[in-house]
Amino acid sequence: MKTPQYIGVIGSGTCTASTYSVARDLGFEIGKRGWTLVCGGLKGVMEGAARGCSEAGGMTLGILPGLDKRSANPYITVPIPTGLGDGRNLLVVRSSDVLVAVAGGYGTLSEMALALKADKPVIGLKTWKEIPGVHYADDYLEAIHLIGLSLSSKVMKPQKGAKGTKNKIGI
Amino acid sequence: MKTPQYIGVIGSGTCTASTYSVARDLGFEIGKRGWTLVCGGLKGVMEGAARGCSEAGGMTLGILPGLDKRSANPYITVPIPTGLGDGRNLLVVRSSDVLVAVAGGYGTLSEMALALKADKPVIGLKTWKEIPGVHYADDYLEAIHLIGLSLSSKVMKPQKGAKGTKNKIGI
Amino acid sequence: MKTPQYIGVIGSGTCTASTYSVARDLGFEIGKRGWTLVCGGLKGVMEGAARGCSEAGGMTLGILPGLDKRSANPYITVPIPTGLGDGRNLLVVRSSDVLVAVAGGYGTLSEMALALKADKPVIGLKTWKEIPGVHYADDYLEAIHLIGLSLSSKVMKPQKGAKGTKNKIGI
Amino acid sequence: MKTPQYIGVIGSGTCTASTYSVARDLGFEIGKRGWTLVCGGLKGVMEGAARGCSEAGGMTLGILPGLDKRSANPYITVPIPTGLGDGRNLLVVRSSDVLVAVAGGYGTLSEMALALKADKPVIGLKTWKEIPGVHYADDYLEAIHLIGLSLSSKVMKPQKGAKGTKNKIGI
Repeated sequence: MKTPQYIGVIGSGTCTASTYSVARDLGFEIGKRGWTLVCGGLKGVMEGAARGCSEAGGMTLGILPGLDKRSANPYITVPIPTGLGDGRNLLVVRSSDVLVAVAGGYGTLSEMALALKADKPVIGLKTWKEIPGVHYADDYLEAIHLIGLSLSSKVMKPQKGAKGTKNKIGI
Repeated sequence: MKTPQYIGVIGSGTCTASTYSVARDLGFEIGKRGWTLVCGGLKGVMEGAARGCSEAGGMTLGILPGLDKRSANPYITVPIPTGLGDGRNLLVVRSSDVLVAVAGGYGTLSEMALALKADKPVIGLKTWKEIPGVHYADDYLEAIHLIGLSLSSKVMKPQKGAKGTKNKIGI
Repeated sequence: MKTPQYIGVIGSGTCTASTYSVARDLGFEIGKRGWTLVCGGLKGVMEGAARGCSEAGGMTLGILPGLDKRSANPYITVPIPTGLGDGRNLLVVRSSDVLVAVAGGYGTLSEMALALKADKPVIGLKTWKEIPGVHYADDYLEAIHLIGLSLSSKVMKPQKGAKGTKNKIGI
Repeated sequence: MKTPQYIGVIGSGTCTASTYSVARDLGFEIGKRGWTLVCGGLKGVMEGAARGCSEAGGMTLGILPGLDKRSANPYITVPIPTGLGDGRNLLVVRSSDVLVAVAGGYGTLSEMALALKADKPVIGLKTWKEIPGVHYADDYLEAIHLIGLSLSSKVMKPQKGAKGTKNKIGI
């Protein structure tokens, strides 16, 4: 079995229609390229991304906070119930080769931080701003381009020296 | 997406050729029925079961103790690296609708106990003996029959009153 | 700060008065020797052991399945809410230098197995029988004697070659 | 046993002498008030805070990423080895009644975000800036004042409506 490439898409469980649409477009491009989508399995950004990915024929993993597989959104191919609550955020990060944050609240911020701590590439799209080490994209196509770069090389690792709190961040 | 049915096959990472063969036969029957195999993703019983399942065209999940997807055996379709060590045993249990223990050591015993604690049906095949609540099978075909029963009804739940330590267990 | 010695006492959340009394006697001897008690923080055996230990002036840790510190029994000095459910069983094991199982059901069996898997000494008192590698004691004083041995040397590690499923176990 | 009050102090494992000193002053005031310190148990800010707290006679919990109690800094009264790596960050958050972030990098940011997600009060001192919902203090005495407020009432919960990504944050 060839080891699959896992793209984590993180974002909150409720979002605007426009954010949902961006997540769906992003998911579609992920599925089209044969990459596997990893997400938290619930609604909002997670559902948008899973929907797009499955519409392109891609596989979608939903690492769920609860114990019931059926709490996954309908576009999840492989639901993983954990019963760990927000503890599943770390599992989303640990599974992913690269992560894209789309909008999002505190849960998403925790995943961005955990991913950067683990030296994983993090791409930001309409999300928490000016976090050192995050590679910001202007739209989903640029995010896809950055995912491709990060899978093919090491250039997308968080910038060294970016871990301090001296730099500015913002939304 | 129809919620998939997850059959956990638990057993140790090293085993005899004969046990490997039983695990493979069991896995094949699981895959043939369209069920998804969940296991710990490593060698031995886990590999045998995953191999059989994938040979029948089934999907195989490997919930790994380490952080590297590539530590999965070659028959795992969906590797899930957790970095939780034996903490992943609980995730194997929580993901599974029903579990089959094949031979196995202490890790397997911990999973059987956690599954029984969570009121999940546990089927035993050449494994730790006389544990109250476990449904013992004589061969892989009887195990498959018991899996089918457990998925279709409630009759396979651990027997009530079986949780005490008064009954005899053994190997 | 001198590193404290942690004695895990595992057993179920409901028990007979006689088992509670054994746990309390055991806990008292633990506290008297300046050892710290680690347990799951709830009722039954956990409460009996914590009560005895605190009555002897000892410190008691309760690693709780839930999110609320106040779910600990009243004899817990240091409650640790985890929100991990049975996932906290592994933390009880990982914290303990040596474990004593007192009676107990499936949860206790899972902890015994996880401890043996992690090569920690396990002492059994009126609990799951004939598990290879467990050092069985006839009463709480013998258990205390075995704890002392295990803290002072390596002689109490699980017996090598004990991990298979060939040996008999029972209750 | 009266339920103890747990003050989480989060910050990175390496820090400047001046940040260490702030953490130590903060820890001292925590210990003086009879509160228990919860931290990640390692060096840097965690050690500074534990040192101050223990110097004031307070109890200090160190929830460790590794499996060895002896990896705790020398001022930890109660080391808790977890073996969960950054997964222990969530346990620090879940144990704490209120958290103070002192300087810190990505790990600290993940804990701030997880705490805000869990609706726990978060106080910021020389740390990640402009995160909605964080109560920023100018010095350790103001932080202590805010801790006191948060323990005595509900006024310190994260501000409602603060979870979105519309507000500005920065360092």
